[in-house]
Amino acid sequence: MTENYTLHEDPRSGNCYKIKLTAALLGIALETRQYDIIQGETRRPEFLANVNANGRIPVLQIEDDSGSRFLPESNAACWYLASGSPLIPQDRFAQANMLRWMFFEQYNHEPNVATLRFWLRFVGEANLSEQQRAQILAKRMAGQDALALMDGELVHRGFMAGDTPTLADIALFPYTHVAEEGGFGLDNYPHIQGWIERVAALPGFVPMT
Amino acid sequence: MTENYTLHEDPRSGNCYKIKLTAALLGIALETRQYDIIQGETRRPEFLANVNANGRIPVLQIEDDSGSRFLPESNAACWYLASGSPLIPQDRFAQANMLRWMFFEQYNHEPNVATLRFWLRFVGEANLSEQQRAQILAKRMAGQDALALMDGELVHRGFMAGDTPTLADIALFPYTHVAEEGGFGLDNYPHIQGWIERVAALPGFVPMT
Repeated sequence: MTENYTLHEDPRSGNCYKIKLTAALLGIALETRQYDIIQGETRRPEFLANVNANGRIPVLQIEDDSGSRFLPESNAACWYLASGSPLIPQDRFAQANMLRWMFFEQYNHEPNVATLRFWLRFVGEANLSEQQRAQILAKRMAGQDALALMDGELVHRGFMAGDTPTLADIALFPYTHVAEEGGFGLDNYPHIQGWIERVAALPGFVPMT
Repeated sequence: MTENYTLHEDPRSGNCYKIKLTAALLGIALETRQYDIIQGETRRPEFLANVNANGRIPVLQIEDDSGSRFLPESNAACWYLASGSPLIPQDRFAQANMLRWMFFEQYNHEPNVATLRFWLRFVGEANLSEQQRAQILAKRMAGQDALALMDGELVHRGFMAGDTPTLADIALFPYTHVAEEGGFGLDNYPHIQGWIERVAALPGFVPMT
């Protein structure tokens, strides 16, 4: 059955880029529909009712003859698109270990590395609330811990979950390769730097816009 | 090949309970080794070197004739144990949609619903830092949003990702069913209440200690 895909996205979001990168590496065509999250366009009633009740992008819309289904959560959308492809290892441990890095990304990496980038680059330090400002130091330290853990892992292997690229790399690449926009220098993480070059050299790679 | 499993855990952690619940529902034997996270036992050098460089529990240790492998991240460990079982749907969309709720759990639910329980029940409000105290209101609101989203989903189906239990239920049950310990009343979420009863009635179910 032929399926068509529409990505509901904000092009500035690394979470949206994950899905575009997965599709590009696999040669899958993807339509996009754009929203401005800073203007609150994903919190409007029609978005909440029709696309995602959680008020967040990205959402992957999957359309076939029987209608449309909507899949929120960037890493779940990548999983759907990459199902059956070499980007998901079939070996039982390797597959679980790939998911381990994807859960790590959502829990330890994104809320620190991506949030500081969003606050400092897109919201602007002067516009942060007192409460946000009070969290900068903790997020800085937790983000550095996350990057150090990645760097330590990449001492042993070429990609996050083995010798070949998987969704673990696609999940971690977007916010890591622009970590400097959130004030995270990558000078201390030489293995991350080599890994960024390897990901960017993959056939079909597209850059974040 | 026979495998033996050891769960490195703190029994107070809902993330550890997820893995014990998965094993119990599937009839898998699990040894446990306990650590006190409040005493920093998972930040000691031997733990960091041998079990998890991220200094966190749970970690699932998988032992066979060729040695031991260590799998951090609760949801990845559940995935490993449940591989090939009915707790993971085989349908492509259903499987991705189950993962969607597992990523939601780590990003939207655990950092709010579980963290407030940890702070209020185990650390104690009087012992919180100024910075933690400043986050209580935001975590309260985000946690309520997460619970409301679950409740809205459970209007339509018996379990989080369909009509039968999956890892999405196992991931979300632990911190939801003790949400009141973090000050989240469940009175406004009648569908969550019914779902808690259905999960607790599953054959093989074990309670959180």
